[in-house]
Amino acid sequence: MSCSEHFSLANIPYGIASDTNHAKGVVTRVGDSVVFLSDLNLANSADLKSALSQPTLNALAAVEKTELGILRKNIQQTLSDESTLSEHGVPIAEVQLHLPIKVDGFTDFSCSKEHLLNASEAVVGKASMPPAAPYLPIGYSGRPSSIVLSGTNITRPYGQYRDGDSIGFGPSRALDYELEVACIIGKPTQLGDRVAVTDADEHIFGLVLLNDWSARDIQGFEMSPLGPMNGKSFGTSISPWVITLEALEPFATQPPPKDIPSQLYLLDNKEKSSYNIALKAEVVTGDGATTVCKAQLSWMYWTFRDLVAQQTINGCNLNTGDILATGTVSGAGDDEHGCLLEMTKGGKVGWKTSTGQDRMYLQDGDGVRISGQAGDGVGFGDCVGFIGAARPFGTAQVHL
Amino acid sequence: MSCSEHFSLANIPYGIASDTNHAKGVVTRVGDSVVFLSDLNLANSADLKSALSQPTLNALAAVEKTELGILRKNIQQTLSDESTLSEHGVPIAEVQLHLPIKVDGFTDFSCSKEHLLNASEAVVGKASMPPAAPYLPIGYSGRPSSIVLSGTNITRPYGQYRDGDSIGFGPSRALDYELEVACIIGKPTQLGDRVAVTDADEHIFGLVLLNDWSARDIQGFEMSPLGPMNGKSFGTSISPWVITLEALEPFATQPPPKDIPSQLYLLDNKEKSSYNIALKAEVVTGDGATTVCKAQLSWMYWTFRDLVAQQTINGCNLNTGDILATGTVSGAGDDEHGCLLEMTKGGKVGWKTSTGQDRMYLQDGDGVRISGQAGDGVGFGDCVGFIGAARPFGTAQVHL
Repeated sequence: MSCSEHFSLANIPYGIASDTNHAKGVVTRVGDSVVFLSDLNLANSADLKSALSQPTLNALAAVEKTELGILRKNIQQTLSDESTLSEHGVPIAEVQLHLPIKVDGFTDFSCSKEHLLNASEAVVGKASMPPAAPYLPIGYSGRPSSIVLSGTNITRPYGQYRDGDSIGFGPSRALDYELEVACIIGKPTQLGDRVAVTDADEHIFGLVLLNDWSARDIQGFEMSPLGPMNGKSFGTSISPWVITLEALEPFATQPPPKDIPSQLYLLDNKEKSSYNIALKAEVVTGDGATTVCKAQLSWMYWTFRDLVAQQTINGCNLNTGDILATGTVSGAGDDEHGCLLEMTKGGKVGWKTSTGQDRMYLQDGDGVRISGQAGDGVGFGDCVGFIGAARPFGTAQVHL
Repeated sequence: MSCSEHFSLANIPYGIASDTNHAKGVVTRVGDSVVFLSDLNLANSADLKSALSQPTLNALAAVEKTELGILRKNIQQTLSDESTLSEHGVPIAEVQLHLPIKVDGFTDFSCSKEHLLNASEAVVGKASMPPAAPYLPIGYSGRPSSIVLSGTNITRPYGQYRDGDSIGFGPSRALDYELEVACIIGKPTQLGDRVAVTDADEHIFGLVLLNDWSARDIQGFEMSPLGPMNGKSFGTSISPWVITLEALEPFATQPPPKDIPSQLYLLDNKEKSSYNIALKAEVVTGDGATTVCKAQLSWMYWTFRDLVAQQTINGCNLNTGDILATGTVSGAGDDEHGCLLEMTKGGKVGWKTSTGQDRMYLQDGDGVRISGQAGDGVGFGDCVGFIGAARPFGTAQVHL
């Protein structure tokens, strides 16, 4: 899916690419043309010039927001000249995209009330909110090492899980996706600093799509009381294009009202602190794609501004390149479940693909494609991953 | 505490230091003398030479183990000449030590059965093992950004917590330490690779002491079902000296026998897969130190080899500089509780310092010193941190 309509001049996302003429460097995208920004000679400072030639976006993400704003305007102006775009644009099929960010820290929150209710109903048979969830965005530290670029295959993980009354070991039998959006931290903080929710945008470089692949059987067995680990850490996909808050500002909207008054540190002064982003998840099987979820980012009870405030209220420091994610984005409807745990009610209710195949969790060879669009000309493209068979576990792994 | 007796020629730990004559670089320690290894001209390769001049140990940790073994022998031989040691040794008081590792990923496991039983009794009033704990080392991803060097002050964190029947917000009222040991990953793996438990030592560069500071009230409120986050992520201290497995090998010992047969991937072929390391925790108040815990690493039900196998069984990749920690090291005795949650039975039973002061959890100005010694001439030194008062939370943090 090219999604070229997501990438108008109003978008100007950032990514990392290389091609036969360019080492890894910062690129943007207009339609299906990719432009290496170092070719445009737009950098006003040595720091910015250097940042545009780095193999990750981290240095660019750390640049001061006003300077980034000027860069964005210069890019828009330069590339609005069709002959310039034609001169410097490389067809997207001719570049290799790379993981845009060196991720230092990864926190996955749980911002959707509907997901929390549906997931608890699927797992324990009764919809209930975790004790802290009405008061703060609950979350867990994820594994940074296994964050991969969209398009990377995900190998079915091995692990231990409940198997009737005994404990089994083998390839996961409940492999799932999670439809998420994440913010990338730009401006870092020092240990001990707190970021006020009202200042949080200063620290957000932009947003990406994220698929938090989950092995529900491994996760379900391991997670009491320390939370998910091996059920999640085998792979997390992000989309190649980081969409800036400036590109998303025209689509800013109010989040849902709070059910109970927030503690002071979560009291925001920005009315439209969320964004209208239409999200979609499709399961891709051998003979076609089936839409399994349509959801809106704006349904999330907690905003990215809330997540930054929550992450730092205890003085935890942010590094440039940190990822803070929404957790599964779900709604109340039957076609608004952002993961198969919800859709199958914990592996109990099957579903059919668009061509009539029976499915529960993901099978080897299946893929998941998530996409997100804020409005005309501004979107994320997609974030894709296909499931590879588990590597055989044999005596080769156990040198006894 | 100088602990100079921990650092004989049989130890040869690695750390990072700088002084008036040296930029940050790799050092070792003999007694109270610190030697910058780039001064000794022992590197046989350009890679090793470069590694010894880096501001972290990561490049050195990634060097092949046989080459590291040769380096170690060369250092021992060179510094056994007293005049050489005297020529190149810098008094430890004249160097600045730095965080030895750039930590990419941090997993904190829970290897002590006694801690799991005591902690559950403290929290829910009944000693019980988490469902997966008999089968695998349960753990959670920690926050890498807030890992600090021994000696760094720990600021009391703010957060939300249960306060009777309502929810409070303010500085933690239950600040605790956790006595832990951690391994530092040297040789990395690729996503999808599994490390056999029998091969795990190949990936372990060495061990450090670790104090996983914990705000029990914040943690207790947030952790169901996603595990601890803000209750831990405000700071984690590690000791400055990485002790290699070669230095510890003379102190290798058997871990406790398994209660139930392990799955294949946790079946080790090394009999002495643990280490005799005597650990101690002291709380330091204005007028002296009180020993609050004495425990042995060898009591741990799971070994570092088990942790490497567990971390990678699902294909999760290891990066050089990753930290895998034991969780609280506790024993069965009343003077063997590796944290105050256990010792105070969840804040219900107070204790007295050596000078008769009443204590429950840590107060502002208190410090915690943990130390570890494997045997004559081989130890970790100590890992220290003092509690600073919470930064006032005022309207300055909330720009409404």
